[in-house]
Amino acid sequence: MQTSKENMILLGIDPGTATTGFGIIDARNPKKLIPIHYGQIRTSKNDLMQDRLLKIYNSINHLIEEYSPDALVIEQLFFNTNVKTAITVGQARGIYILSAGHYKLPVFEYTALQAKMELTGYGRADKKDVRKRVKELLNIHGDIKPIDASDALAIAICHSLKLNKK
Amino acid sequence: MQTSKENMILLGIDPGTATTGFGIIDARNPKKLIPIHYGQIRTSKNDLMQDRLLKIYNSINHLIEEYSPDALVIEQLFFNTNVKTAITVGQARGIYILSAGHYKLPVFEYTALQAKMELTGYGRADKKDVRKRVKELLNIHGDIKPIDASDALAIAICHSLKLNKK
Repeated sequence: MQTSKENMILLGIDPGTATTGFGIIDARNPKKLIPIHYGQIRTSKNDLMQDRLLKIYNSINHLIEEYSPDALVIEQLFFNTNVKTAITVGQARGIYILSAGHYKLPVFEYTALQAKMELTGYGRADKKDVRKRVKELLNIHGDIKPIDASDALAIAICHSLKLNKK
Repeated sequence: MQTSKENMILLGIDPGTATTGFGIIDARNPKKLIPIHYGQIRTSKNDLMQDRLLKIYNSINHLIEEYSPDALVIEQLFFNTNVKTAITVGQARGIYILSAGHYKLPVFEYTALQAKMELTGYGRADKKDVRKRVKELLNIHGDIKPIDASDALAIAICHSLKLNKK
């Protein structure tokens, strides 16, 4: 079993203020990835931004405390989005990265396109293909819900696959 | 002397990852604004983003602990900036807003244009005019350095002037 410091427990994150998807995988054996925990952090549009960001911060910190990941892997925003979205997603990103700083964890980033390429091998795969591949690679039967969790798992898997191509 | 909960100690912030300008004013008497403390938080481009954001978070928390502001006033980004800048500034904004959430402080936001209008009365004023007005209103002799601190003071003053027009 090939192990390395880089190939351990990964916390994948699909960023967002209203819903942050997360997915924790055990990638110590890159040929047998194991899902540990996945889900989403939801915040209400009726709450103040400061309370929403605080909830995200506390939730990410809690996940790190509980599952001791060795790295955070965050889905990177496409640069063709609009500025308003970029600011809002940037705010949430600031929170995840701050958590990483707090626990001295490295941060890796990939776009959804990179994840798609790594997982399916072709850029024209649709989201369904990626989700199917996530289930195959993690040996999960039935659908992964919510969808944000599947996307977060995909980003974590992407990092593991990238590392093991080197 | 007119006082209100809204007109107390204000922490103005000019956002940025490399340099965050800050300016704390006593606005209890809106006709006699008093500068309390101003300066900037600098982080190095050579450091990891997680360490830079952690430094900003700790510094803002420290200012809040030390000067007990009643509100944060943050300069809002223009929407005509580019997406890459928006994400980076968004990350820093997330940190300031998280600090506000941590200390249960309200957050107010104004664009540089709004601050310019409030302070000088005309939108075509240049940055020099705004900085001159900041010095006049705060009764500061000599230049305010660094410039980011002056911009942060301007945003805090803008909030006070807005409140007292009502």
